[in-house]
This record gives sequence, C-alpha cells and structure tokens, in this order.
Amino acid sequence: MKASEIRELLKLLDQPDIISFAGGIPDPSLFPSDAIRDAYGDVLGGAEAGAALQYQVSEGYLPLRRWLAGQMGKLGIACDEANIFITSGSQQALDYLGKLFLSPGDTALVTWPTYLGALQAFNAYEPRYDRLRPEGGNMTPAAYHTAAAANGGRVKFAYLVPDFANPTGATLDRKQREAVLDLAGELDIAVIKDAAYRALRYDGEGVPPILALDCARSGGIDKARTLYCGSFSKILSPGMRVGWVCAPRHVVEKLVLMKQASDLHSPSVNQMVMHCVAESVFDSQVEKLIGAYRERRDGLLNALEVNMPEGVSWSRPEGGMFVWVTLPEGTDAAELLARSVKEARVAFVPGNAFYADGTGRNTLRLSFTLADRRAVSEGIPRLAALLKG
Amino acid sequence: MKASEIRELLKLLDQPDIISFAGGIPDPSLFPSDAIRDAYGDVLGGAEAGAALQYQVSEGYLPLRRWLAGQMGKLGIACDEANIFITSGSQQALDYLGKLFLSPGDTALVTWPTYLGALQAFNAYEPRYDRLRPEGGNMTPAAYHTAAAANGGRVKFAYLVPDFANPTGATLDRKQREAVLDLAGELDIAVIKDAAYRALRYDGEGVPPILALDCARSGGIDKARTLYCGSFSKILSPGMRVGWVCAPRHVVEKLVLMKQASDLHSPSVNQMVMHCVAESVFDSQVEKLIGAYRERRDGLLNALEVNMPEGVSWSRPEGGMFVWVTLPEGTDAAELLARSVKEARVAFVPGNAFYADGTGRNTLRLSFTLADRRAVSEGIPRLAALLKG
Repeated sequence: MKASEIRELLKLLDQPDIISFAGGIPDPSLFPSDAIRDAYGDVLGGAEAGAALQYQVSEGYLPLRRWLAGQMGKLGIACDEANIFITSGSQQALDYLGKLFLSPGDTALVTWPTYLGALQAFNAYEPRYDRLRPEGGNMTPAAYHTAAAANGGRVKFAYLVPDFANPTGATLDRKQREAVLDLAGELDIAVIKDAAYRALRYDGEGVPPILALDCARSGGIDKARTLYCGSFSKILSPGMRVGWVCAPRHVVEKLVLMKQASDLHSPSVNQMVMHCVAESVFDSQVEKLIGAYRERRDGLLNALEVNMPEGVSWSRPEGGMFVWVTLPEGTDAAELLARSVKEARVAFVPGNAFYADGTGRNTLRLSFTLADRRAVSEGIPRLAALLKG
Repeated sequence: MKASEIRELLKLLDQPDIISFAGGIPDPSLFPSDAIRDAYGDVLGGAEAGAALQYQVSEGYLPLRRWLAGQMGKLGIACDEANIFITSGSQQALDYLGKLFLSPGDTALVTWPTYLGALQAFNAYEPRYDRLRPEGGNMTPAAYHTAAAANGGRVKFAYLVPDFANPTGATLDRKQREAVLDLAGELDIAVIKDAAYRALRYDGEGVPPILALDCARSGGIDKARTLYCGSFSKILSPGMRVGWVCAPRHVVEKLVLMKQASDLHSPSVNQMVMHCVAESVFDSQVEKLIGAYRERRDGLLNALEVNMPEGVSWSRPEGGMFVWVTLPEGTDAAELLARSVKEARVAFVPGNAFYADGTGRNTLRLSFTLADRRAVSEGIPRLAALLKG
C-alpha cells in the first residue's frame, strides 16, 4: 500500500458513517484545550509576547529544554539542556537523524513491521533496510556487516519503538533492550529510540528507557550511542508540532546546524506555550488519557475476543494506541480493507505498509484511541462477519 | 565568516549597550500582538479548537491556502489552492526546493552576494554555485552548461530575491526579470524567487513578480518554471513560522510528499491563526510597517551621508530591511566588526558571508528595522569614526 493510498484512506475519516480504526491520532475531545488556550493568552499577553512572535535560537526555547532535561532525569537519564534539541514533532527528529547518518546504500536496522513514518523519513536518504529482531533471532554482527557491505554501504543505526510500538503495540523487556545495546555496541552503530507512546502505559511495570541503560553502561549521556526521540503529540497536542531529541551534546550540536539550515527553529510561541502547559498539566493529562484509552483498549480487546473467527490472532498491548491483528495466511488485508470500507463501512490500516520488505500482507493495525463503545460494538462484529463470510 | 561566528555575533544583540545593525529581524514592538493573541483565543475557543490542536494534511490549512491564492491573484498570478503549499517559514521552502532539485555536484545559480540562509539550505545538498548577474553580464547558456558539466552535474535552478534583496536591498526592474526568465528558458531550469520582503516597498512603483511574467509567457502557472517562496515572517510574525510556496501543481505535489516525510505538516493552530490575522490585519500591518521602516531607512541613509568618509558607498533601497555598504578596497569588514564591537559597541554583518565564492570582504550589511533615532545618531558616527581613524 502506497503513501498516496493511505492518504486516500485517511480521507475516509471525514465520512460520518465510516467507523474508523485507521488513524493513529489522539482523541481531540481529550486535548487540554482550555489550558492551551489560556497559555497562549498568557504568553501573548505577557512580558514575553515579543519574544514569542520573534525569531528564536535553533536549539529551542531554553526553559522548555530545561524542563525536558528534568523529565529525562526522572526516567534515569541524567542530562542538562545541552542534551535537549527541540524539533517540530518527532517526525522531524527522524528526518534529521536519517539525514545525519545515512548515505545512499547504507543500512538501517528496523523491526518487521515498524513505524511507517520512520520508513518514509529514512527513505529520502536511500538506505537499505535489514531486519532487527529484538525478540531474539538477530543475525551475527559479522553477517549484518557483510550484507551492508554487499550493498555498498555500512550499518548506520538501529531504529525502534520500544514501548507500545506503532504498529504492533509490543513492548520490549529489559533483557531485550540490553540485547539491542549489545548488538549496537558490537556493530558500533547508533540506536534511535522513538518514545512517542512511552507515557501511555495502562498496565504492568515500566521498563527503563534504552538511553537510561546506555548511560549506565557507557558512563553518561555524552558517551551514549542512543538518541531518544520524544513527542508531546500523543499527550498534549499533535497540531502544535513540538517534539525533542535527548542525545549526546555532540549530536545535538550537529542537529542544531541542520535545523538552522532547514527551518531556522520550531515556532517560538508554540514552544513557550508547550512549556507552560507541560509544567501545569502534563501529569494530570497523562492520568486522564490512561483512564480513557485503557477503557477503549479493553473494549476493543473484548470485542475481538467475542467476535473474531478462529485463525485470527491479535496483540494485547500494555499501553499506546494500537492492536495488531494477524489474519489467516493467504488473507490479504488490503483487499479486505477495500471490501470492508464498501460493505461494512469499517476502516483500518493494512499491515503491509509497515514492512520494509513489503511482506505482512495478512496483518492489519487497529487504533483504539477513537474507538468508543458504539464504534467497537458495531464495527468489530461487522469486520468479523466479513472475515467469517 | 562561519555560521557559528554569526551565531556568536547575534548573541551580542542581548547586550544592552551594543547598538546593532546586524540582525535581519523585524521590530517586535510592531508585531500585531493583540490581533494574534485574540486570534489564538478565537480559534482555540471556537468550534475548530479540536482541529487546531490535531494533525492536519501536509499541504496545509485549506482556508489559508485559498486566501493566499487570492493574494497571488492580486499580483497577477492566477492560481488556486492546488498551487499553494504551506511551509514552516520560507527557509523550509528553500530546504525542500534544494532537496527536490539538487544532487551533489549540480549547479545552482545565485547572485554574488545572496541570502546567506539560502546558501545554508542548499549547501546540505552539496551543489556548486555559479554566478547569476541579473544586472547584466551573464555568461552564455552554453558556458553555464559546460562549467556545470565539468563539475559532474547540471544547472538546476537560479535563486534570487528580486525585491529589496537580502543583503543588498537591490530590486530588479522588469527588463532584468524578463532576462532571468530568458536565461532560465535557454538553460531549461527552474527559477526560485524568494519574495520575503516584497510587501515592504517605501518608494517607487512595484514591479511584477517573476512568476507573473512567467505565467504570462508560459500560458499559466501549471506550465511555469518559477517557484514563488512567500513568508509572513517580515509582516506578521517570524516566530509563528508560516510561509508558502506558490508553484505549478506538479511541484506542489512533490513538496507535499516531502513534507509528509519530513515533519508531517506545519502547526495546525498557527496556520489557522495566521489565516484569521492575515484576513483582518495584513493590509493595515503593511501600512504600519511601511511608515515605521521608511522613516528608519531615511534616518540611516541620512546618517551615512553626513558621517561616512570618502571611499565608502552604499545602496539606497526602495524597501525591505537592509542597506549594503561597500568599503574601500582592502578594508576587511570582519576585522572591522571585531574592532567595532570592542571599541565602538556597534554591530553589523560582514558581507563576505553572503558570497558563495568567499569574496566581498570589503562589504557589510546594515539592517535598519531596529535602527531608531538614537541608534542611528550614536551608532553611525561611531562606526564612521572607526573607518576614518
């Protein structure tokens, strides 16, 4: 499935009779709109109004960078503002890191499947992909090297979403995270950790971030090989486009020069507002989302249990936004989507798009963030009926 | 002068006793802060609050694109929303167009000097630069082709700032614009027109945009070779980071895919607010800025006339933000800056940074947007005294 087809698909969300489990987007009715509106009023009505509307340094608004360094500290990543770089969403972080590391023909290690937006960001730099298996079963470092060299490049980084991954919902345990660092050390490559969903844990115990484990073994963030890509999009607002990279200072310095050449800086006013809002409502907003999304996840899992025919299996994520469904071998989820939209008025994303090698035709992704009771109680039986018929 | 040195220089602006003619930034006291604050309140308090904080299509907010298409129409460029692509400032447009057109070793035609940010954006794609002389004296198309081929690439585009250029303040007349289109036609290359300062004309008659002339000869925007990069930064607010490209539809389609991979979209809320603000105060804001900046330009030109020693010459711009000063041959403006900051507490940007070939050592740029009467009446005599002594 091509990006253009996915765009067409997303347009379906505007049709009121379509029940959509497709878009990987937060529920807009849960945005802290009042807090955000008040913060824009305060920032633009206060002593810093001029600064909020003026050009700004490329690394980002200092108080926001300091606040984020404090948040990273709470996760076991001791750092300061020199380790924080503000981006226009974590998509921009992926684009810049792709640009920083990849020359055409180089190899990026990704899971099969992985976040589609990461593949789109990296594709601009013409890499080859090889398969990362944090669940076990990686090739030897020598085999990765040899395969990369045969393509005329080198292995440059491993990219992964360790918490409640997009699209599978899976979370890596501590041992798997340590194994990723072992492999990265043997290959001497960077680890790009996409932490977009990290705060959205509904059950179970949190696992230390790979960057925290890396700092512990390497002796501090400036010696680490892991680059943490964070985002406010899933907690506060995606439309404000504020994300960050937490990384060794020498990497931040390169990203700052890249940003200066590419868009100067992320919007000043949005950074200042995000700082106000994050300081005041980040924790309560996380609580609110956990309550609402946990209920929706449970509703979706229950409906799948009740309705799905034998031969269909799915993930049971401890957090995040997605349930990953595997259909019987030979079923094509893209064909199913076309029928489902037409006959059942239910939308989802076929899983094939998330595979760098174009496999995974019998998989699909369901997002539960917008899946209220009606959507689940009507949509899942209709989808199941199609699969049974 | 390197980018890092210029960054150091810009930090001087924070020192209260420095009189700075350096930063190419608008006067924050002239921002329409109240209108912008009210618009954030309206957008985030209204029926579209959810959409303002949510993800958005990569091409940009439709009502803003329609409004911009109408504005382009008033400049003689008949187009519709399919020809408008929203960027995070015009710097992002330059980055994307560099990425779209340039492979390492290709040639970009630029004036000597040209906008430093454009060189920074294009440098990421490793071009060679050749000299564009819209004032007359271009090489033959064959000579440009041969020089490009000798570098292992092709001539891909001509970039220029036709109105009140950064850094020189110069404006191309109609005949010069037609000559640029003639050359681009003979070379079969794109023309990237940076229109950042276009609305800020203080005297004289407006000249048709190159894109308007191109549409007239090519038979419409979708057949044109000119790409118009516009920006709200100089009129409404740079800190909101909203710009646009007006271009043939087939170019817009490519830019949309690029944006999807690089940062998804520019902030939804800023686009919606910019639309509100532009609809209500764009014209009055232009009037206000013209009044204020014209007076500052006149004050600066007068002070140069009264104080500068023989052998120093300068441009007399009809608009924009900059006066370009040429010092006697052999004077190094970077050395002068170091002395000027230390002894006279006056800052400016040495002109050398704006030359793709590293020449222009005896030139400097003065910005008059922040040059109030005191700054001019104290700063210019001090700078002149240094040059005399």
